[in-house]
Amino acid sequence: MPKPVLTILAGSRPVTGLERLEALADVRLATDAAELAAALPGSEIVYLWDYFADGLRQGWAGADALKWVHLPAAGVDRLLFPELAASNVTVTNARGIFDAAMAEYALAGILYFAKNFPRATLNQRERLWKHFGTSNLAGTRALVAGTGSIGRATARLLRAVGIEADGLGRTARNGDPDFFAIHNSADFASVARGYDYVILAAPLTSGTRDMLNQEVLAAMRPSAVVVNMGRGELVDQDALVAALSANGIAGAVLDVTHPEPLPESDPLWGLDNVLITPHLAGDSRTHLPALAAQFEANLVAYREGRPLANVVDKRLGFVVSGG
Amino acid sequence: MPKPVLTILAGSRPVTGLERLEALADVRLATDAAELAAALPGSEIVYLWDYFADGLRQGWAGADALKWVHLPAAGVDRLLFPELAASNVTVTNARGIFDAAMAEYALAGILYFAKNFPRATLNQRERLWKHFGTSNLAGTRALVAGTGSIGRATARLLRAVGIEADGLGRTARNGDPDFFAIHNSADFASVARGYDYVILAAPLTSGTRDMLNQEVLAAMRPSAVVVNMGRGELVDQDALVAALSANGIAGAVLDVTHPEPLPESDPLWGLDNVLITPHLAGDSRTHLPALAAQFEANLVAYREGRPLANVVDKRLGFVVSGG
Repeated sequence: MPKPVLTILAGSRPVTGLERLEALADVRLATDAAELAAALPGSEIVYLWDYFADGLRQGWAGADALKWVHLPAAGVDRLLFPELAASNVTVTNARGIFDAAMAEYALAGILYFAKNFPRATLNQRERLWKHFGTSNLAGTRALVAGTGSIGRATARLLRAVGIEADGLGRTARNGDPDFFAIHNSADFASVARGYDYVILAAPLTSGTRDMLNQEVLAAMRPSAVVVNMGRGELVDQDALVAALSANGIAGAVLDVTHPEPLPESDPLWGLDNVLITPHLAGDSRTHLPALAAQFEANLVAYREGRPLANVVDKRLGFVVSGG
Repeated sequence: MPKPVLTILAGSRPVTGLERLEALADVRLATDAAELAAALPGSEIVYLWDYFADGLRQGWAGADALKWVHLPAAGVDRLLFPELAASNVTVTNARGIFDAAMAEYALAGILYFAKNFPRATLNQRERLWKHFGTSNLAGTRALVAGTGSIGRATARLLRAVGIEADGLGRTARNGDPDFFAIHNSADFASVARGYDYVILAAPLTSGTRDMLNQEVLAAMRPSAVVVNMGRGELVDQDALVAALSANGIAGAVLDVTHPEPLPESDPLWGLDNVLITPHLAGDSRTHLPALAAQFEANLVAYREGRPLANVVDKRLGFVVSGG
């Protein structure tokens, strides 16, 4: 069996495990959209190693042999252009790799506000030793929007430290192994008042865009904190700025914004009750080799004719649990 | 049986559950050292509700009937003056009440540095969206100095999130239910290199004063982070400032300092890799009623002639585990 032709959009970062891939495929390396377009004719597989890079849609007309696109990221929202979605090309993602780091990020954000570290930071700039209020995790309640592998890992970690974690997903249900209860996303505004923490870990789809809107924010407790580690577009950012400015909610930890990078002029930067990180919640010291090993294992499966892991439901926009 | 005379040093804060105590004892309220001295003659019990207040030593000569002093705090270092230590007066403390909050504080401090929130805060002031490194908890190692109830609760919480927690105590041992291993405090410098996080939760005694000294700091990893929630005097603060300034260690989260309040001129305030909170790690929304209920239960035991809970070993300076 001949090696399949594999085009890797490497962007500016070295491709971890490249030699191992070259043993399994006839590799073409592209560093930008133009090189990707040139490499696409005859390519069976595209591996978007630099997942922030664009170019597949621009070169789509030349993708005459494409069967599989792998995106080593959790969210495929930027990748799923209509021609790809309508095609027979299989799309896989990096489901699972970011779970532990993102669960920890959510807990870090929760504890940052629970222990009032924003106030500590402000007081420290003034060299001010002055008592302020803090709160405990035990007995608090978190609502995790997104019941995929990241949301589930988050719920498990929060439960391990004494937080009751409910989920928000496509279908309300009880008896879930990871969530105490799962509410329907359509009921977000009506259930929001019941939570101390709202964690956004949902994929960006037509159904989740702007899910954290003015109505939901108005329903939340003034003491509530939002952690967004999904996509900036899950949030009506103007409504969030308004709620935070008016202390309608207590704080927000944002790993994702709309747009990214967040422009220097954006009012979010200036709010004392906001902490912004530049889209790194899934990072870890091991995530690059883990991503490489995950793709390599799928490439071996591809060559052997076995089913691929982590196939994205292109209509839904994410990997269906268990799939 | 007549009610015992109970003097409460209330300081400036209202005594939670006062009416319930008045049902059990003949209560004298003192708001400062002078009132305490006046109330001491004839008092069997002293309850230092405002545990930051002083005065017992100054009034000691008049303590002609004193049998029991209760301090609703974890550390009794400021209370144990020589005359009290040498007397037959029983001292009890608030063992257990602060455990959960302090364990959470330690985890908050660890995650604050693991997720590099100090860098996020600095970048946010500059409105700078720029990637920076973070790390995961899974597989890291923490050394918890202090194997009392606070250190144990901390170890259990850290283990629940994937951190391997060892202890540092008076006796090296294995097979402990909460710690993976316990090292002897005398070996602090020789074992310090093995840890990502060093948590100080020990009582202040002659044996623990300055335990985190220049030698230990020099042995620690440059990536290591210190959390001190015990007493400021556990640390050679000049050596700590030097290590932090030279990036000999990565950071410190300090709930206690020496002295307190930390003077405005102290160099700790100005270090970007330090977070200071004003002695609040044990606080929670429920700690005041919990402290009140704990003393009340002991007062009932006292009246019924049963043994008191949480009796401090005045020679060692803390409650011996299981005691």
